[in-house]
Amino acid sequence: MPRTLRLAMIGGGEGAFIGAIHRAAAALDGHWRLVAGAFSSDPDRNRRSGEALEIAPERRYSSLEALLAAEAALPAAERVDAVAIVTPNHLHAPMAIAALDAGFHVFCEKPMALDLNEARSIAEAQARSGRQFALAFTYSGYPLVEEARVRVARGDFGKIRLVQVEYSQGWLSRPIDREGNKQAEWRTDPARAGLGGCLGDIGTHAFHLAEHVSGLQVRDLCADLTTHVPGRRLDDDVSVLLRLEGGARGTLKASQVAAGDENGLKLRIHGELGGLEWSQMEPNSLVLRWLDRPTEIVRAAGPGLAEATLSLLRTPSGHPEGYIEAFANLYRAFAMRISDSAGTDLDSAFPSVDAGLRTMAFVESVIANSASDKKWTTLAPA
Amino acid sequence: MPRTLRLAMIGGGEGAFIGAIHRAAAALDGHWRLVAGAFSSDPDRNRRSGEALEIAPERRYSSLEALLAAEAALPAAERVDAVAIVTPNHLHAPMAIAALDAGFHVFCEKPMALDLNEARSIAEAQARSGRQFALAFTYSGYPLVEEARVRVARGDFGKIRLVQVEYSQGWLSRPIDREGNKQAEWRTDPARAGLGGCLGDIGTHAFHLAEHVSGLQVRDLCADLTTHVPGRRLDDDVSVLLRLEGGARGTLKASQVAAGDENGLKLRIHGELGGLEWSQMEPNSLVLRWLDRPTEIVRAAGPGLAEATLSLLRTPSGHPEGYIEAFANLYRAFAMRISDSAGTDLDSAFPSVDAGLRTMAFVESVIANSASDKKWTTLAPA
Amino acid sequence: MPRTLRLAMIGGGEGAFIGAIHRAAAALDGHWRLVAGAFSSDPDRNRRSGEALEIAPERRYSSLEALLAAEAALPAAERVDAVAIVTPNHLHAPMAIAALDAGFHVFCEKPMALDLNEARSIAEAQARSGRQFALAFTYSGYPLVEEARVRVARGDFGKIRLVQVEYSQGWLSRPIDREGNKQAEWRTDPARAGLGGCLGDIGTHAFHLAEHVSGLQVRDLCADLTTHVPGRRLDDDVSVLLRLEGGARGTLKASQVAAGDENGLKLRIHGELGGLEWSQMEPNSLVLRWLDRPTEIVRAAGPGLAEATLSLLRTPSGHPEGYIEAFANLYRAFAMRISDSAGTDLDSAFPSVDAGLRTMAFVESVIANSASDKKWTTLAPA
Amino acid sequence: MPRTLRLAMIGGGEGAFIGAIHRAAAALDGHWRLVAGAFSSDPDRNRRSGEALEIAPERRYSSLEALLAAEAALPAAERVDAVAIVTPNHLHAPMAIAALDAGFHVFCEKPMALDLNEARSIAEAQARSGRQFALAFTYSGYPLVEEARVRVARGDFGKIRLVQVEYSQGWLSRPIDREGNKQAEWRTDPARAGLGGCLGDIGTHAFHLAEHVSGLQVRDLCADLTTHVPGRRLDDDVSVLLRLEGGARGTLKASQVAAGDENGLKLRIHGELGGLEWSQMEPNSLVLRWLDRPTEIVRAAGPGLAEATLSLLRTPSGHPEGYIEAFANLYRAFAMRISDSAGTDLDSAFPSVDAGLRTMAFVESVIANSASDKKWTTLAPA
Repeated sequence: MPRTLRLAMIGGGEGAFIGAIHRAAAALDGHWRLVAGAFSSDPDRNRRSGEALEIAPERRYSSLEALLAAEAALPAAERVDAVAIVTPNHLHAPMAIAALDAGFHVFCEKPMALDLNEARSIAEAQARSGRQFALAFTYSGYPLVEEARVRVARGDFGKIRLVQVEYSQGWLSRPIDREGNKQAEWRTDPARAGLGGCLGDIGTHAFHLAEHVSGLQVRDLCADLTTHVPGRRLDDDVSVLLRLEGGARGTLKASQVAAGDENGLKLRIHGELGGLEWSQMEPNSLVLRWLDRPTEIVRAAGPGLAEATLSLLRTPSGHPEGYIEAFANLYRAFAMRISDSAGTDLDSAFPSVDAGLRTMAFVESVIANSASDKKWTTLAPA
Repeated sequence: MPRTLRLAMIGGGEGAFIGAIHRAAAALDGHWRLVAGAFSSDPDRNRRSGEALEIAPERRYSSLEALLAAEAALPAAERVDAVAIVTPNHLHAPMAIAALDAGFHVFCEKPMALDLNEARSIAEAQARSGRQFALAFTYSGYPLVEEARVRVARGDFGKIRLVQVEYSQGWLSRPIDREGNKQAEWRTDPARAGLGGCLGDIGTHAFHLAEHVSGLQVRDLCADLTTHVPGRRLDDDVSVLLRLEGGARGTLKASQVAAGDENGLKLRIHGELGGLEWSQMEPNSLVLRWLDRPTEIVRAAGPGLAEATLSLLRTPSGHPEGYIEAFANLYRAFAMRISDSAGTDLDSAFPSVDAGLRTMAFVESVIANSASDKKWTTLAPA
Repeated sequence: MPRTLRLAMIGGGEGAFIGAIHRAAAALDGHWRLVAGAFSSDPDRNRRSGEALEIAPERRYSSLEALLAAEAALPAAERVDAVAIVTPNHLHAPMAIAALDAGFHVFCEKPMALDLNEARSIAEAQARSGRQFALAFTYSGYPLVEEARVRVARGDFGKIRLVQVEYSQGWLSRPIDREGNKQAEWRTDPARAGLGGCLGDIGTHAFHLAEHVSGLQVRDLCADLTTHVPGRRLDDDVSVLLRLEGGARGTLKASQVAAGDENGLKLRIHGELGGLEWSQMEPNSLVLRWLDRPTEIVRAAGPGLAEATLSLLRTPSGHPEGYIEAFANLYRAFAMRISDSAGTDLDSAFPSVDAGLRTMAFVESVIANSASDKKWTTLAPA
Repeated sequence: MPRTLRLAMIGGGEGAFIGAIHRAAAALDGHWRLVAGAFSSDPDRNRRSGEALEIAPERRYSSLEALLAAEAALPAAERVDAVAIVTPNHLHAPMAIAALDAGFHVFCEKPMALDLNEARSIAEAQARSGRQFALAFTYSGYPLVEEARVRVARGDFGKIRLVQVEYSQGWLSRPIDREGNKQAEWRTDPARAGLGGCLGDIGTHAFHLAEHVSGLQVRDLCADLTTHVPGRRLDDDVSVLLRLEGGARGTLKASQVAAGDENGLKLRIHGELGGLEWSQMEPNSLVLRWLDRPTEIVRAAGPGLAEATLSLLRTPSGHPEGYIEAFANLYRAFAMRISDSAGTDLDSAFPSVDAGLRTMAFVESVIANSASDKKWTTLAPA
């Protein structure tokens, strides 16, 4: 277990959803202590947020620049180790690059950037800085997602033929982006959200999960992007046909206008011998179906799990772990990697620049294909 | 309740699966009595099947032609009322046309025919004969499918935006079509199955269910047909993007190589206000999700059902009805229509020629699109 | 497959629920043809029911006595083989005895009789007549109940420790028995229903299922019978602690005032090595949980089933079979036993007199115990 | 939001399960910081645990006595606010009393004590100290348990008739208590676990949940305690019939030999108008069934929740919260109560002495009844 590391947060002031989740996830296992932050560009809001979080007054910064400068000047034993970036998407790239270049590790919200070019700049900054970069593709932190990944990789299902992923939400069914909902507002604003709406916000999660668990890269895709709510400036619904390496076929469906749906991320993969199904809303079960024997339900902390899965669990079987715990698994892996001197194999323990580059390439390819009459668009291999 | 009608069956001899289902479905409510048949082109098998079914020897016919000739010569009070055609697909059209033209009502297995042209010929025969024609899109016979249809039609969900249908089987994961499995053999033989493999066998079910419940016709589609099992002559996996009338978007996924999956037909429809989900493997529940109130589970014979749904139920709530009961609902509606003098509005009570024409047009469009580099293929409105 | 047998029905006229179920179950597989009946003591209702069922006028009888006399006088090749008794409980014993003594096989609704003495009289009549007697403990006809029974019997779970059965309905939550609901009326009338209300109606089902699947007899019980709805004359809620042979412990809970519940019959059995769970409302799955390996879901017509289970299935996996099919399995076994010359081992294929005697002894023991301050009442072994 | 409070922990050193859970739960929302502890009576283990948890060396105490003395001597601004007691059961009472008497708030593991007398001593110490006492009946911290409680209390279901609670585990199916499993060892040792085995360990959870949500106290009970595993010194299986105030009837079933079961705590309550069902293993759904309208699924953070429920949630709907989050709700309520000057209404926000007294009275009554031939034992009202 590493010593407790020190974290700074950019964004995530009063009322922000994801900042609070990052803080809980970072706190859960005791590997991180939040000691500094620039929580809001509004000075009053920044102050109130800092007070509520019991941040020392001198470490409540007015901006990322101020934070980086002041923290870099502190002795190593006091300086923050990493910066968590939980701002709207358009700030991810400049902030991540600045923080990496200032010598700090970075834990960044997804999507990585506004476009692939920006993502590449982050990747370059990561490489030249030698610092760690973690990307909040939270769902890969669930223990049974890891179990699924391990089982596919070791060939339990034989050659993979089908990959089906869907991410179904309904919260943007009404035009709340024009009725004062802040979360909806920036997520549907191209200047702040980037090229994709639903595509960037949750389509990237679905894409990442599919490639991460299947171990297969998407080669070609054919997409239909739609905006159902009149006046909305970005897509709110995504349908994609996938052709993956090795001949597997796939579908990716993401929607934020599936009225009544909550956070329905679901992955199914089938090979020659059987298939798996995992659903984020019941994350502690992994369903395995077989050609020649009864269906199995592998359960968190139950019998039959891989070593890698067990390391991601905190409670005995039947005591559900949830979203914050999955998130905490990323923060824990991030802490362990930082505490460890070695720095290779970035994507195995937590999503990093490779995941970011793949997902941004996916976003650009979907947008290009959707605007075209041509059926298939090739996604360059990573 | 009509008098009991007399049924003849073509095909469905010893060992055939679907013939036995037709017989059980026809018998369940007492509206039909099987009194004649040509169960097999093999004389011994035909005789043994007829004996087992207690068909009088003189009404065990050697062929459809013999059956039609002999039955037509019987007095009306003895003559069969309808012919059930449960042969491989390539015989549907010639047999249905012959039976209609001989003055018999026809209950035909799906798909309607080998191609759209054949289907049109059946439709013409139906029209000129004035006889009833029922098509075994069984899943529309489930009570909660009717409930779903009624609720969409009366606007419970507002304008429909999303239609997602999938039909996932795994029984063709191995090359059993080349290992002596009769069912697999003819279903993957273009001469007997028609243009589509998985597409014709179960993709048509999925398509019919989607249009039937949504009340919306597919306008354009973009498809990816695949054959995963080496040496197989027809597709075993289908992925389709759909654009429906009124702007709704959809996906259709059908596979017979989803190893371990049984008979996973599932439909989801979302409108502006909420959505529904129905799954064939748990057919007695209909899940309704809403933007602004808790999820509801509408149950067979439970509170809140439409009149039309209640008429399709036989048991009190909590006593599950299944596939044979759904099938029997088609046979009952078919009997009632025949007993009734009126003959319009064919598709509302049981799938008929319109359903057949739509599904055959779908099959042809998918095949054309899948072979093309062009993204969208328009499906002519019915 | 036997020749089609001829069935007569007593009771089950217009509007009766269970008569229609018996008819559907008997018809489903083609082993029975309903050719005679005394459907109602009301002559008009009897006539209308007989017409609707297309019973020949001369075989629409005014009473059981008339039926038995006339049918016995017919040539063997025309005479009915069996009589289905679907009247209220107080008529079961006299009618079953009369039918058996007249030389007919009997399929009787449950509970077997008003009390244990009556049940013994039926058992004696069955023994002296040499005729078959089937009792409608329908739930033992479900394929996966048979699978559960086989697996317990062959020791999959080791020595059995726990048996938990529950049967939860809500339809008697309001005093509908005093508001004109016919079903509720006679079921809560001691003169027609017998000693137990909920206890006799569904408690007996639960008890039979528990002993049938566990293969263990209840030795001692401790019960709490309650009537929740004011003015009701029989119990509407039953709770029982069970001690079974071999040291297993159990609970039995039955209620008809669990408002909102449908027909929640559920059985759980645990042994040293694992346990099973079966739920009537999702009857095509059997859940197996294990100490040392993942949970398994055994599915109707899926891999891993016992031979005995396969013989009870009609459709491929994923095509749900329901309550009528389970009922039809009893009628099929009844037909096969009758067609077969051998006559032993009555309870293995369908519930018979032993099941009836056990359940009536259970009813009497529960009532005696519930009225007593003594904790345990011994149930005499069969 | 209160300032961060300071926590000390007694027990919970390396390898202990529940100590780690307390730490995660206390850390999650940032209301508690662990600054002191006596983690083990073994000095090396205590030191290693303290180091791993980054406790300052001078605050790693060798015993509770040392901790209380030293912390009491610190200035108020440094002194710990509360002590978490996570030792085996026999130490709960002496330690809780000592800590309360020394002026510290106490968060104690359940069961409260070895017997009712001890529990009363804690209650007296709590009263005379004026300090807060929280008891880890964790399951009452789940948001949808609160929703259930609110809905029962406001009369959604009418008068309550049925309360059914069960807690099913299988981890003690084998004699692991004699094979070196530390958790199993002390939990089956009367000297350390108290009067009840399964009864004290999980039966108390079930009892607390039932009374907490129903708002009804158990008046009389009838119990059957069993030890299935040979040589075990305490019960491993509990069955109880309950009679609650107002005429409601109930059952309580707890087992630790339900082989294959994980942590199956489930509560069902029915009133005149409908019923609820909550299951700990899928804690983010509350199922509501109704006499006269469709079943509803109320979801965490979904529409229709009470204010009190919303205050217990951290993530948007569809992002599962689990066991640690429920536990954290207790720690948060505990912190808020301490930070607040008022001190009444102890049991509403977190389980306190009343819950402890009720559950210990339950344990004693079950043991007394189980050993008796008399059917009912009265549980004195609180």
